[in-house]
Amino acid sequence: MYSIETLQEKIKKALKSENFDFKPSELYEPISYTLSLVGKRLRPILTLLACDFFEGKIENAIYPAVGIEIFHNFTLLHDDIMDKAPIRRGKETVYKKWDSNIAILSGDVMFALAYKYITKADKNFLPEILSVFNQTAIQVCEGQQYDMNFETAQNVIILDYLKMIRLKTAVLLGTSLKIGAIIANAGNHEKEEIYNFGLNIGLAFQLKDDLLDVFGNEQKFGKKTGNDILTNKKTYLYLKAFELANGETLQLLKKYFGDTQVENNKKIKIVKEIYEQLKVKEHTEKEIEHFYSKALKNLETINVKDERKIVLKAFAEKLMVRDY
Amino acid sequence: MYSIETLQEKIKKALKSENFDFKPSELYEPISYTLSLVGKRLRPILTLLACDFFEGKIENAIYPAVGIEIFHNFTLLHDDIMDKAPIRRGKETVYKKWDSNIAILSGDVMFALAYKYITKADKNFLPEILSVFNQTAIQVCEGQQYDMNFETAQNVIILDYLKMIRLKTAVLLGTSLKIGAIIANAGNHEKEEIYNFGLNIGLAFQLKDDLLDVFGNEQKFGKKTGNDILTNKKTYLYLKAFELANGETLQLLKKYFGDTQVENNKKIKIVKEIYEQLKVKEHTEKEIEHFYSKALKNLETINVKDERKIVLKAFAEKLMVRDY
Repeated sequence: MYSIETLQEKIKKALKSENFDFKPSELYEPISYTLSLVGKRLRPILTLLACDFFEGKIENAIYPAVGIEIFHNFTLLHDDIMDKAPIRRGKETVYKKWDSNIAILSGDVMFALAYKYITKADKNFLPEILSVFNQTAIQVCEGQQYDMNFETAQNVIILDYLKMIRLKTAVLLGTSLKIGAIIANAGNHEKEEIYNFGLNIGLAFQLKDDLLDVFGNEQKFGKKTGNDILTNKKTYLYLKAFELANGETLQLLKKYFGDTQVENNKKIKIVKEIYEQLKVKEHTEKEIEHFYSKALKNLETINVKDERKIVLKAFAEKLMVRDY
Repeated sequence: MYSIETLQEKIKKALKSENFDFKPSELYEPISYTLSLVGKRLRPILTLLACDFFEGKIENAIYPAVGIEIFHNFTLLHDDIMDKAPIRRGKETVYKKWDSNIAILSGDVMFALAYKYITKADKNFLPEILSVFNQTAIQVCEGQQYDMNFETAQNVIILDYLKMIRLKTAVLLGTSLKIGAIIANAGNHEKEEIYNFGLNIGLAFQLKDDLLDVFGNEQKFGKKTGNDILTNKKTYLYLKAFELANGETLQLLKKYFGDTQVENNKKIKIVKEIYEQLKVKEHTEKEIEHFYSKALKNLETINVKDERKIVLKAFAEKLMVRDY
């Protein structure tokens, strides 16, 4: 099997060799800009990884993998408009660098380009690939809508939150793997379980992101922690704290999350202290462990020799233990 | 062959029977709203028409036709944000009725839904259908970008304008027909020529729209004429007038198109008088005739009995002679 590094290199090369230098430049420059930013390339790597895992030819999965990465970047372009996010991957967002009209339309082209690359898959697998991809594209949008709804919604509970991140983040990881499995002509049980593996890894991955935003190592994390606290984002940690807190602690939480006047560092410090007091970190880690172990169980049921599972397991573990 | 009215009825029924009553409602209500507005349903009718023309089973073309109509409506949703358009088909636009974030994300879902419906086509034809549809989706976005560029661009000439409307409007009419032809298993020459027929009809159709905006019968047109003049839109008529005018007339045109203080009715009246003086109406009609007759020539080269061409010809003619 290929190593993660080799697959990473293949994706990097494939993306670099694709040329988006078309006219009108107002439309395509933001696309080249977005795709040239350094990202984890998590999703296309998962596609190649799954294809290789089920003994498919990864050459057949490269274009669809590139399509999935373009799709993911399209969603970021549009999300950044909706969230008014100025910075992404350390650079100005398209919405900020150009304007929101450019970000809307470049995003739309990227969505069409995603399909263009996915359509390059072997035609025998196309209906199945498109069926799962179409559904996932819809679900990712639904997840983003729930995420936006949460900003103003009262009484969001953890169950709502898990549903939201399943749609917004996890299904695309599952689908990235499943498309690789389809291209490798894997069996039905195998395709379902690799999807579920990705889904559970995706849930754990997002919870890990939430955790790092508060408790990450700032130097390794590459950005200041506490941003979710400052923006009153209803993350797993926030919702868990509200679930656990009572009496004075609950009043304090309400006070600081409702307060727009309080000084930034003070707000982060106090909310973090409450989180520590309530053991929110430990609760989140337990939930991550829960989904991670579910993912490993999905992997166990797959009828592939154990030695082939090593790379997938190692990759999943790397996503879990990261501190950035 | 089916009559246009029967095909119209089939599309209406198919769209009505599709249910978009999903969660989250913030995302799907605008979709139901958009698709329930009364439109010409021109593109899906063309798909069924072409399928029937080449003796295919129109039942096989219904879902892809619905997908094309959803795609078209997605582009309107996003265009309306970019153009800040408050009204569409006599009703508030999604961007205005809700907000631009809702219009962005509902539009994105519609784009994915369009693919979902198109993917329901017979799998043997799927690669070809998707290849033409992906390309067209990209071109429609390119056309919208050129259209936006023209707002501030100097020195736009008629050739640029024709390229823009080819991308923004005409290619989708060609593709709507071609997808019907693909589903009917038509020959390569036939598929190309029905596409070109649609392309030329599309160009004529857009020029007719430009013409009606200035010279339409207000009662039949259903809205006030002169809007393109008021918004200084660089339509075919505008560009032709600038091409033909010189001396005092050119100065007058420049004065009125540059003037934001002039009273609306006065501006429309004077520009219209200049158009009449320069015979811009006749020039535009000649150009419409040019593309219309090219379209008919495309149709002539298609190896289908003349009697089957009657419905297509009648439909094209109806689009040309309309005064609304």
